[in-house]
Amino acid sequence: MTATAVPTITKDDLARTAAALRDFAVRTPLVESAELSRRFGAPVWVKCEHHQPIGAFKLRGAYTAISRLAPEVRARGIITHSSGNHGQAVAYVAKHFGVRAVIVMPETAPQVKVDGIRRHGAEIVFTTKKERERKAQELIDRDGLVMVAPYDNLDVIMGQGTCAFEILEDQPGVGTMIVPIGGGGMLAGTCAAVAAIKPSVAVWAVEPALSPKLSAALQAGHPVPFEPVDTLADGLVPPSTGKITFEYIRPVVRGAVTLTEDEIAAGVRFLFHSMGLRVEPSGATPVAALLAGKVVPNGPTACILTGGNVDPAVFARLVA
Amino acid sequence: MTATAVPTITKDDLARTAAALRDFAVRTPLVESAELSRRFGAPVWVKCEHHQPIGAFKLRGAYTAISRLAPEVRARGIITHSSGNHGQAVAYVAKHFGVRAVIVMPETAPQVKVDGIRRHGAEIVFTTKKERERKAQELIDRDGLVMVAPYDNLDVIMGQGTCAFEILEDQPGVGTMIVPIGGGGMLAGTCAAVAAIKPSVAVWAVEPALSPKLSAALQAGHPVPFEPVDTLADGLVPPSTGKITFEYIRPVVRGAVTLTEDEIAAGVRFLFHSMGLRVEPSGATPVAALLAGKVVPNGPTACILTGGNVDPAVFARLVA
Repeated sequence: MTATAVPTITKDDLARTAAALRDFAVRTPLVESAELSRRFGAPVWVKCEHHQPIGAFKLRGAYTAISRLAPEVRARGIITHSSGNHGQAVAYVAKHFGVRAVIVMPETAPQVKVDGIRRHGAEIVFTTKKERERKAQELIDRDGLVMVAPYDNLDVIMGQGTCAFEILEDQPGVGTMIVPIGGGGMLAGTCAAVAAIKPSVAVWAVEPALSPKLSAALQAGHPVPFEPVDTLADGLVPPSTGKITFEYIRPVVRGAVTLTEDEIAAGVRFLFHSMGLRVEPSGATPVAALLAGKVVPNGPTACILTGGNVDPAVFARLVA
Repeated sequence: MTATAVPTITKDDLARTAAALRDFAVRTPLVESAELSRRFGAPVWVKCEHHQPIGAFKLRGAYTAISRLAPEVRARGIITHSSGNHGQAVAYVAKHFGVRAVIVMPETAPQVKVDGIRRHGAEIVFTTKKERERKAQELIDRDGLVMVAPYDNLDVIMGQGTCAFEILEDQPGVGTMIVPIGGGGMLAGTCAAVAAIKPSVAVWAVEPALSPKLSAALQAGHPVPFEPVDTLADGLVPPSTGKITFEYIRPVVRGAVTLTEDEIAAGVRFLFHSMGLRVEPSGATPVAALLAGKVVPNGPTACILTGGNVDPAVFARLVA
C-alpha cells in the first residue's frame, strides 16, 4: 500500500487561485442558521455554493483548471465525465473561452443538470455510469480533446479549496467544517486549505449510506470501487473516491459519516423551510448530518452546501 | 371616472384555490430575516416565491387560470404576452396539460427567462414591448388560441392571492405586507386576500422610479399608460397597471413607493449576502424599500419576494 505523493497546497496558492476566480465565480455568502445556532449553542453557517452561476461549486475547479491550460491545448476542446454539476461547470467555462466541450454523462443524470449543460452549448454523450470513463477515453483518442477530470486533477482540487479559504477569511473562528464527498474534489480542497491555514479545524465528510465510498476507503487505506446506485444524492456516486483526492483527504479528515435517504431528505426540507434555500440533496448532506446527530459541532461550524440543481418535481415532492 | 365592478374574492375562494395548487406549486416558506428583525424591532419575514418550480410566483395564477378552462377550450392552446416569468409559468402549466403555448415577449427579455420558456417547450414570438398586445391578438385571430392575460384576469388574480393567504396562515399576526407592482396581479391578489381575511394589514406597493405606474394611477384615479423603459426590475414594466387589478388595489393599498436603480440593487445584494437568497431585482424591491427607509413596518412585516430569475452575469455583477 503506497501513498501517491501529492504536492502541498499553500495558503498563497489558494489566495492567488481565489483572486483569479473573482471575475468569474461568485464569492458566495456564509449565512448563519439562527435555528441551528440555537440548537447547538454555537454559530452554524452555511456556505451557499448553490448560488454559483451554474448552481454548484464546480465552477471553482473547472475555471481554475481550464484557465491554466496553455491556450493552444485548450483550443483543442475539453472533455469530461460528470453526473451533472461538473459537466455544467465545464460547459460554462468552455463557452467563456470559446472552445468546444463534450460531457460524458450517465443516462440517469437529473434533467435539470442535462438542461444546464445544453444551455451552455456543450455536447452531451450519454452512457452508463459504469462505462463513462471508457467512453471519454474513446473520444479523447478520436478528437484530441483535453480531459479535465471532475476531481482527480490538482488544479480542480486547488479551485475547490478556495471555498474553505473564503470560509476561513469570513469566519476565522470556525472549528468544524462539514463537506459532502463524492469523488472528493471539494473535500480534498477543504482538507488542503485547513492543513495550510488552520489545522485545528475538524473536517467531517458526509456520504450516502447507499454508497459509502470514503468510509470504505478510509478503512481499506485506499479508494475502493463501488457499483453505481440510485440515491437522492445523485452528485455523490462516482465509481470511487479519487486517488489524488484521497491523498489530501486521508491525513486531515476526522471521519466520514453516512446518511440514509430519509436523513438526506430531512436536510433538504430543513434548508428550505427554515432558511428559504433550495439546495439539492447532495448539497444538503452536511446540514442533514447535523440534524441526524451524526456530526457534533466542535465550536463554530460551517456546512458547505455544494449545489442546488434539483429537478423541480423532485424538489416539490421532497419539501411538500 | 367610472370604477369597473369586480367580484369580491372570499377567504373560501382563496382556501379552495390554494388547496388546488398544492399538487402543482410549492407552498413556499416564510423565512425570518434576523438582521431586518433586529433593525426594525419586529419580525420581518420574506416569502420565497423565487423558489417556485419556475422561479417565480406566476405559477399560482397561471395554473389557476389554465386549470379552470373548459378542457375543449384549453385544448386549442394558450397564448399570453409576458416579459418572462408569466410566460415561463404558462409554458410550464401548458406542458402539464399537454397543450400548445405561445408566448409573445419583448426582445429585451432576460436570456434566463427566454431559456426557461424554451425549456418547457413553448413557442416564443419576439416583438417590441409596445407591440406585444397587438401581436398577441393577431395570433389569436389566426390560430384560435386562448389568451391567459398576465394580470388582468380574475383567476390569475385569485391564484396570486393564495400567496398572501399562506402568509396569513403562517403568521396571523402580520401587520404589514410589501409587494412589488408591475401589472398588479400579485398586488391585487394580496389586496383581495387582506380585505377578505385581515383588513388591518397595511399593504404597500413598490415600483421602480423609472416606471411609477401605480403612483401615477393612484393620483389619476385610473391606470395610466407608460412608455417601456430599461430598469433592473425588468418584471415591473408592463404598459400600465391593469384595469381589473387596479380595482382590487385602489381601495386597499396604503400607497406606492418608488425606488431608484441603486436602491433596487442594494436589495438584491442584501438578500444574497445576509440571507443567502438569489432573488431577481424585481423580487427584491420589497426588502429594498425597507432598506431605503421608504416603507416603515407597522408591526410584523412580510415581504413578498416574487421571483429569482436573473441572468447569472447580471447577478454576479450586482452582488460583487
